[in-house]
Amino acid sequence: MQKIVARPAANRMMAIDDPREARRMIRAGEYTGHTAGVAPDFVQGNLCILPKDLALEFAAFCQRNPKPCPLIGMGAPGDPSLPGLGDIDIRTDLPRYRVFKEGKLIEEPTDVRKYWSDDLVTFVLGCSFSFERPLLQEGLRLRHVERDTVVPMYRTSIDCVPAGRFEGKMVVSMRTFTPTDAIRAIQITSRFPAVHGAPVHIGLPEAIGVADLARPDFGDAPVLDVGELPLFWACGVTPQVAIEAARPSLCITHKPGAMLITDRKNAELAAL
Amino acid sequence: MQKIVARPAANRMMAIDDPREARRMIRAGEYTGHTAGVAPDFVQGNLCILPKDLALEFAAFCQRNPKPCPLIGMGAPGDPSLPGLGDIDIRTDLPRYRVFKEGKLIEEPTDVRKYWSDDLVTFVLGCSFSFERPLLQEGLRLRHVERDTVVPMYRTSIDCVPAGRFEGKMVVSMRTFTPTDAIRAIQITSRFPAVHGAPVHIGLPEAIGVADLARPDFGDAPVLDVGELPLFWACGVTPQVAIEAARPSLCITHKPGAMLITDRKNAELAAL
Repeated sequence: MQKIVARPAANRMMAIDDPREARRMIRAGEYTGHTAGVAPDFVQGNLCILPKDLALEFAAFCQRNPKPCPLIGMGAPGDPSLPGLGDIDIRTDLPRYRVFKEGKLIEEPTDVRKYWSDDLVTFVLGCSFSFERPLLQEGLRLRHVERDTVVPMYRTSIDCVPAGRFEGKMVVSMRTFTPTDAIRAIQITSRFPAVHGAPVHIGLPEAIGVADLARPDFGDAPVLDVGELPLFWACGVTPQVAIEAARPSLCITHKPGAMLITDRKNAELAAL
Repeated sequence: MQKIVARPAANRMMAIDDPREARRMIRAGEYTGHTAGVAPDFVQGNLCILPKDLALEFAAFCQRNPKPCPLIGMGAPGDPSLPGLGDIDIRTDLPRYRVFKEGKLIEEPTDVRKYWSDDLVTFVLGCSFSFERPLLQEGLRLRHVERDTVVPMYRTSIDCVPAGRFEGKMVVSMRTFTPTDAIRAIQITSRFPAVHGAPVHIGLPEAIGVADLARPDFGDAPVLDVGELPLFWACGVTPQVAIEAARPSLCITHKPGAMLITDRKNAELAAL
């Protein structure tokens, strides 16, 4: 979850509100940076492409762990399109990918056409960008956004429900709020079950196996203010950890921060 | 969706609040009737068992059509247990099954052990019992419950998003409410996205291809009162219609009304 340094095209990219135009630029190779703030009213997704022989198990893993693994799109074997999410070619429409073989990172290309085959199945999972936007719109402060850092993430002692070769502990992201805002944050994110939903924990980090809030496992260290409570949301890093442990022959993900931009509005996700 | 005539054991069964005891009786062959009203605080599910070669496509169909096909459980190939839903053997724990070969109904047995193989994958979908209970608890009138009839269901002109060999029109169930109660019903069912969620339509049946409310395609005809509005919810018959059209070599479902009783509380479904 390292920070991605914005390229010169970033300023122009950040001004784009239309997800189709954003994907056109990315597809054409004109932008290879992070997608936070691009087309901000639209859902962005975590990508995971797996061989067909693991796909049914991964679908079951997502079904059994909907908070860390909220499935918002699923492709057919060998088909790089994603009905319902937009006019997407999953092989070219993300700024940057990560390619893993047997669990080892081998390349971070800007398109993955050379790896594509009839054996691959695409999964898209909701991400916290979709609930951070409504939190900000309702006037809540997000400290990592104010400080322009990456949200802190922690490995917990919470077991995911296993499915076939996929298993592991839940990873959570943490945001601090005043008690009043904490209640509002729970209300607001409860409306978005398709993008992690309500928090999984509030207030007592040690109760979920987080020994030291100042030392996250991923992302940047938080500033902790007296009078604020930590809220913990299930995080999209959870399936990545489960996939690493399963060591698939081939796995393609987005590079952290460089997400799939879809044509679905964040607001739609509150209306299921 | 014919009515199932309760057997002599029904009175005793209806008094059971514990889902484990209900499943024990069913597993022992002591009850083969319908499950409406049994362990009423607990989630009941629609069953669909399919060969593995169709399972990934059906998982995608459910993912793309979450309102008619809310997936609440998914088994591993060949595994009759269902982690997360209770101590379940899916081959014996429903009162009565339907077995289809090439789309044709061939038997309605009380257990399906003789059909089981390593090739079969279990899917459990949420059902409207889970949202009717909170509607009643909040004081809303459900006319089909008052009259002890089956809720009316209609084929609509709404296309499901296809996935592989699965496609078709959405089937909806209909309940009428006064305008004030209609708003409450929308609020209450919005809290239960895992069991069909908010209605898909209100007020204008012809706009979704329903020509005559008095003549449902499944279930019993409704009584329509002046001053009431019809509300339409996506219905679990939708995947059955899609499966029939796909004509799988083998498919096992519950007999309508004779559902899987799980250990999950209805109230849990509002807390995702």
